[in-house]
Amino acid sequence: MKADCILQKLRLKEIPTLPRILEKLNKLTIKALSDLSVSDEIKSFFPNLTQKTVSFVEGEKGMHQKKRVGVLFSGGQAAGGHNVIIGLFDALKKLHPDSELFGFLGGPSGLIKNQFIQLDKGLLSNYLNQGGFDLLGSGRTKISKEEQFVAVGKNVKELKLDGLVIIGGDDSNTNAAFLAEYFSLKKINTAVIGIPKTIDGDLKTDSIEISFGFDTASKTYSDIIGNIARDAISAKKYYYFVKLMGRTASHITLECAAQVHPNMAIISEEVKQEKKTLRSLIEEICELIRSRASLGLDYGLILIPEGLLEFIHDLSYSSLPTHLQTQFLEFRDPHGNLEVSKIDTERFLIELVKIEIDKQKIEGSFKGTFSPQPIFCGYEGRSCFPSLFDAKYTYALGHVASLLIHENLTGYMALVKDLTKNVENWQIGAVPLLSLMHMEMRQGQLRPVIKKAMVDLNGSLFQKFKEKRNEWKLKDDYQFKGPIQFYGPAELTDNLTLTLLEDKK
Amino acid sequence: MKADCILQKLRLKEIPTLPRILEKLNKLTIKALSDLSVSDEIKSFFPNLTQKTVSFVEGEKGMHQKKRVGVLFSGGQAAGGHNVIIGLFDALKKLHPDSELFGFLGGPSGLIKNQFIQLDKGLLSNYLNQGGFDLLGSGRTKISKEEQFVAVGKNVKELKLDGLVIIGGDDSNTNAAFLAEYFSLKKINTAVIGIPKTIDGDLKTDSIEISFGFDTASKTYSDIIGNIARDAISAKKYYYFVKLMGRTASHITLECAAQVHPNMAIISEEVKQEKKTLRSLIEEICELIRSRASLGLDYGLILIPEGLLEFIHDLSYSSLPTHLQTQFLEFRDPHGNLEVSKIDTERFLIELVKIEIDKQKIEGSFKGTFSPQPIFCGYEGRSCFPSLFDAKYTYALGHVASLLIHENLTGYMALVKDLTKNVENWQIGAVPLLSLMHMEMRQGQLRPVIKKAMVDLNGSLFQKFKEKRNEWKLKDDYQFKGPIQFYGPAELTDNLTLTLLEDKK
Repeated sequence: MKADCILQKLRLKEIPTLPRILEKLNKLTIKALSDLSVSDEIKSFFPNLTQKTVSFVEGEKGMHQKKRVGVLFSGGQAAGGHNVIIGLFDALKKLHPDSELFGFLGGPSGLIKNQFIQLDKGLLSNYLNQGGFDLLGSGRTKISKEEQFVAVGKNVKELKLDGLVIIGGDDSNTNAAFLAEYFSLKKINTAVIGIPKTIDGDLKTDSIEISFGFDTASKTYSDIIGNIARDAISAKKYYYFVKLMGRTASHITLECAAQVHPNMAIISEEVKQEKKTLRSLIEEICELIRSRASLGLDYGLILIPEGLLEFIHDLSYSSLPTHLQTQFLEFRDPHGNLEVSKIDTERFLIELVKIEIDKQKIEGSFKGTFSPQPIFCGYEGRSCFPSLFDAKYTYALGHVASLLIHENLTGYMALVKDLTKNVENWQIGAVPLLSLMHMEMRQGQLRPVIKKAMVDLNGSLFQKFKEKRNEWKLKDDYQFKGPIQFYGPAELTDNLTLTLLEDKK
Repeated sequence: MKADCILQKLRLKEIPTLPRILEKLNKLTIKALSDLSVSDEIKSFFPNLTQKTVSFVEGEKGMHQKKRVGVLFSGGQAAGGHNVIIGLFDALKKLHPDSELFGFLGGPSGLIKNQFIQLDKGLLSNYLNQGGFDLLGSGRTKISKEEQFVAVGKNVKELKLDGLVIIGGDDSNTNAAFLAEYFSLKKINTAVIGIPKTIDGDLKTDSIEISFGFDTASKTYSDIIGNIARDAISAKKYYYFVKLMGRTASHITLECAAQVHPNMAIISEEVKQEKKTLRSLIEEICELIRSRASLGLDYGLILIPEGLLEFIHDLSYSSLPTHLQTQFLEFRDPHGNLEVSKIDTERFLIELVKIEIDKQKIEGSFKGTFSPQPIFCGYEGRSCFPSLFDAKYTYALGHVASLLIHENLTGYMALVKDLTKNVENWQIGAVPLLSLMHMEMRQGQLRPVIKKAMVDLNGSLFQKFKEKRNEWKLKDDYQFKGPIQFYGPAELTDNLTLTLLEDKK
């Protein structure tokens, strides 16, 4: 594929600005480390890993060794992935010109099967600031079986890797921690470093301010939803039910709601906390439609997180209306449960709301019209050109990963911090993967896994949304963000997500 | 609604550049008119309308009268609608400061029910370069009954309108011609002017180079499809079936195909010409999937025009596999026909392809995997911020409409021409609505209607696509346009659609 489009070519030429501290790459050394508290239970799974926090300070110009490093993508695409690899490559070469970088193909399975390519400047020059993970591909294979660990150990030893960088979400980074533990146990000198990736925004802690990809995805969706909102108030005849990515946490839905001001936005975490039933949720939507109809407004915009159904209290197959039981027969599992992950949430809700509204029409309590349109904001938000924020953030993350490998740190997540400041003032660091974990039931076993960050219902962003949402129900206040811009005034090209801004307040 | 977003505010400040000829607005006069050929049959419906073509030349500074003008949106949204109205307003005021502009609400029904607002600078200043039709709303009411014509005639007389501008597609402009005829017959001095609007791009003739909204919509879709393509080659596991707007003509699908280079793009006009059956079309798709699978490629990108099913030869309910007959029972009309307009084309094709692929799996002739994902690029392309092209084009169209009203021309479509040149060199003109018509069966009657421009299978763009598409089947050549840009180098912000460029070659 040859890049023919103008934006593609222009973006290829622009090396992202680095934080000032990373400009002195070869003078950086580790500051005194201190222990983070990790439970004994979690520590028992990782006896060979440290729990020390890390930060960097400017020191004497050090001598850097030549390094051999591997890198791979794991899980779903997020904008900026290629810049992590290019940042890693550029930093490795700055620290030692003979260092080498290898990319494993198709995600973790490439690591198991030893499928890789060597990355060089020529090849990488086609990927700067470009979307997708297509340089290497990605995959969701989990390294869990003993023979997989053995194969991976053999491959990294053969390749003489000093470091392995895993660009992934919570599950992939949990896997990274187990790999780091295995390598340490087996005296394999390959440092394992994780990079926080996920458009869902649920890989987030006190130290990880945001995962990369969230900025671009939520802006891409906000643009689309804004267009849909403008269509709604223009034609005044459709109810748009917009489903947004986010199987677990509703960060994307909350961010887009805070940006676009829809008439309603459902937040899974709130549904769970308030133990909402399907019936009460449907009634809430119908109530919105009725109140708007009474003002002559037969249109609207409702945002729905993809994973909503999992959070509904007492959702079962038999609780559905008979008509829907037939329609959703294919989603009934052998135990009579509803396989919610297979259901198109927005279409499912539309069906249920329709039944209710039709009933109310016959009873005479609803006098408007109801024309719903399902929309899914999904795959188009994962592989787009990274926003300037994500482009710079990921390029810096790649640099940090290189530093960590040079310091022989293993089982760490690379960090870039103070992200609400100007890029020049961003800080860097690392946090042990252990410290991000909690114990969770997985396939009947209590296991240490990196904890997903859910929407904080006491957090500032949700609270602000809660204050405003009643106003937005009946009084349209749609906002139109427009498409991501790469040129023009900085207030336009470099604006931040409210999720990041409010968290940092 | 207060515009809070940065792009909204920035775009509100930028008055679109005008063609040089429109800077001398008050010096323009009509050039000698010549007759266009119109069939006697069509003329018989419009005995009071002229068939003369119009162009403008610079003359003496004329004295312009104060004018009262009405304007309305008709049909689906298209980016740039607000700029037509602002261009009209600005031009009216330039020609006479006391001229007044009235906007009818909710489309043609506002004209019938006499629902309007007076437009002033303050109100309009919130809409410059903004998407949607929400200043006035729109609607699809057709003015067809005698009493509707009478009501409209009464309303424009009461409002003392010198002109009425209808911003609409082919049907709305057909309606405009009938209104113009009615006003002339009844000696109502309201000139009726049409503005070529439709994202579908099918309101196009030798004189109308392109309708407004097509540029923005096709760029918005190309961005999304590019993101989807990048996702496809990254994850390498999904077949994206992307449905695109276009109930009749496939211009949007062809434009997006020429931009993004998908593995397959179905063009309705070709399906019709080649009398393709549903079976042959499904087999074509399966053949693509099989050939790619044989190369280890279990992913792909297929573009589908919304109206495809209407063009398939011999499509009937009973020709469906039994399994699908049950599933699509609700789409069976009383005559046993398939109500294709109610079917989600992309999901329908996926179902049929799945059946075929599953069969081939069992037979052993297909060894890959097939994970389809339906995507609809629809409503989000209608109401977005107009591209710089559409913003300038519509602002100029509004100016031309004002000139035509000052010249007391009725039954004309406003034109801006030479659109592939720099905006400074764009030319202006008008064409009688009559000359755009042909006779067509509508509800059992032969009626004059504006002819929809279908994709020209002998045209340069389709021919180029045809040359390339076999290559794109197996050798991925996806191109990534990225989001519409409003700032930056002109080659980025002002690039044109291939539909326009190739047509003008």
